[in-house]
Amino acid sequence: MRTIDYADGVITMIDQTKLPQVEEVLRIDTVEDLVAAIKRLSVRGAPAIGVAGAYGVAMAARLHAPGTPAFDTAVDAIREARPTAVNLAYTVDRLKTLAGGGVAALEAEAHTIRDEELAASVAMGDLGADLVLELTGVAAPRVMTICNTGGLATVERGTALAVIQTLHERGALTEAIPVETRPLLQGGRLTTWELQRMGAPFRLAVDSAGPFLLTQGAADVVLIGADRIAANGDTANKIGSLSLALGAARAGVPFIVVAPESTVDMATLTGADIEVEDRGADEVTSIRGVPVAPPGTAAINPAFDVTPVDLITALVTERRILHFGQGDTL
Amino acid sequence: MRTIDYADGVITMIDQTKLPQVEEVLRIDTVEDLVAAIKRLSVRGAPAIGVAGAYGVAMAARLHAPGTPAFDTAVDAIREARPTAVNLAYTVDRLKTLAGGGVAALEAEAHTIRDEELAASVAMGDLGADLVLELTGVAAPRVMTICNTGGLATVERGTALAVIQTLHERGALTEAIPVETRPLLQGGRLTTWELQRMGAPFRLAVDSAGPFLLTQGAADVVLIGADRIAANGDTANKIGSLSLALGAARAGVPFIVVAPESTVDMATLTGADIEVEDRGADEVTSIRGVPVAPPGTAAINPAFDVTPVDLITALVTERRILHFGQGDTL
Repeated sequence: MRTIDYADGVITMIDQTKLPQVEEVLRIDTVEDLVAAIKRLSVRGAPAIGVAGAYGVAMAARLHAPGTPAFDTAVDAIREARPTAVNLAYTVDRLKTLAGGGVAALEAEAHTIRDEELAASVAMGDLGADLVLELTGVAAPRVMTICNTGGLATVERGTALAVIQTLHERGALTEAIPVETRPLLQGGRLTTWELQRMGAPFRLAVDSAGPFLLTQGAADVVLIGADRIAANGDTANKIGSLSLALGAARAGVPFIVVAPESTVDMATLTGADIEVEDRGADEVTSIRGVPVAPPGTAAINPAFDVTPVDLITALVTERRILHFGQGDTL
Repeated sequence: MRTIDYADGVITMIDQTKLPQVEEVLRIDTVEDLVAAIKRLSVRGAPAIGVAGAYGVAMAARLHAPGTPAFDTAVDAIREARPTAVNLAYTVDRLKTLAGGGVAALEAEAHTIRDEELAASVAMGDLGADLVLELTGVAAPRVMTICNTGGLATVERGTALAVIQTLHERGALTEAIPVETRPLLQGGRLTTWELQRMGAPFRLAVDSAGPFLLTQGAADVVLIGADRIAANGDTANKIGSLSLALGAARAGVPFIVVAPESTVDMATLTGADIEVEDRGADEVTSIRGVPVAPPGTAAINPAFDVTPVDLITALVTERRILHFGQGDTL
């Protein structure tokens, strides 16, 4: 399954806001529609957003000649659609430097980025599975995770969920425990859907049960993805990641970040320098269109949190493992 | 507003499962209906369940003569409706010793328990507000809380929310931050409803944002209720309490349990001896009737967690403050 694809100026993507009830493929051929799709999370997950941004720049070059103000405006709009996702800025900037080569050069580079993501997912799955087995000392671990870090978040297989998939393919997974990931329920809606499709055993839990289940010994390891990793290792990821990190530290369970190298942002020195979006009250006060708070309720809704590096056992990328817990640095 | 009341063999209670959209008062005149109402959380909150249990025994004595097997069966059914709520067993047992006095004695004692709860809420509010101002050193603190610990959870005012109400009445509350409390959303549905009715400023957050907001300095103190407090101070409370305790400890923010003396169970030595209910998958896989996971999804759904005493700064009851952080013991 390809989450996102591109041909002849048209981006196709599964509308993740409608899963798991409806599997709908969006056909996007304007910058406005792409920006809207990114903002409403029809495409989400740092690597997938990065690929969407790259295809977006290629698409923009068909609509507006590179070098014109209209092209630059379009590219800037794509780049700013999700401020926390460093991959988006990375891929957009990478394509923009090739704009002089025209549509063909941009489309070729966007496909290259997609192929790199595919290869990276395979590599992260292998490196991560090896590390999990080594750190836990368990032949078939139980793995807790948050949000969706699978094929839906990348192009195929994913990051943290690629590790779970690899463990499952090796016959080395007892159970996955995804937490549901309020407010948008990516864990409950999307990760469960992917785990079902791969035939992996799993049980869902509410987010706040994660830390308690860890202290009760219900999981051997926690695996998360990342939206941005600062130079010191502090990691921005879906809201709730920090809770699991605190629970894992309390329980003495390894807490591992799995993310491509493109997620590392050496220009951001520490987590304190990461801007966290507040996505407004509506996502909190209603769920799938059903009101769950009295009318007029105000909310705080940080989309991400920042897990300090001292709570992270290790980082797995497509080409290395950094044992933060043993003093490794980026 | 009285959450629960009783007259002439009929218990009346607000059906909390329908708030905030519908304010419906249930009239209950059979043991079966009372047990069902407790199990489905139409009445919830340890003190309110305790009062419901006391009125239930009085009601049972009108239906079955005390001393008969039918009476004993009815009383046992009430006592077992919520295994984690020690108040329920406490009030049921307290009434049962008076069963020889007949209906009049039981009804009088049940009303006494209700009046004691009312007085306890006022006292906890005052003691707790004093403690919060002392520990935070802030003239008008920002207070994070979980679940519903207000008038809906007791008879009036509540426990942790009574402290927030008292601060607000003193003009000493900048903001309350209730977390929504998945799966049943008591924070999002009920605490918000009570805060609106008392005119207190507040913003709602998803559960997993709580620990991050604490590390960001968004609150000066965390106040929670309790379902059962072990002899060593370990505290069973709504799932998610432990997450907030871990976040508060990380942030250096005081974490205070507010609960009546009846919640202390000296027969339970530590948190490891507390039985935690699993309430099944349905509450996790659908929200207010809307499916939020693929069909057939299994779930782990612990209703409570246990916060170890080393993470609890202090316990406030209606008659004392225990500074666990300074070595006080029960």
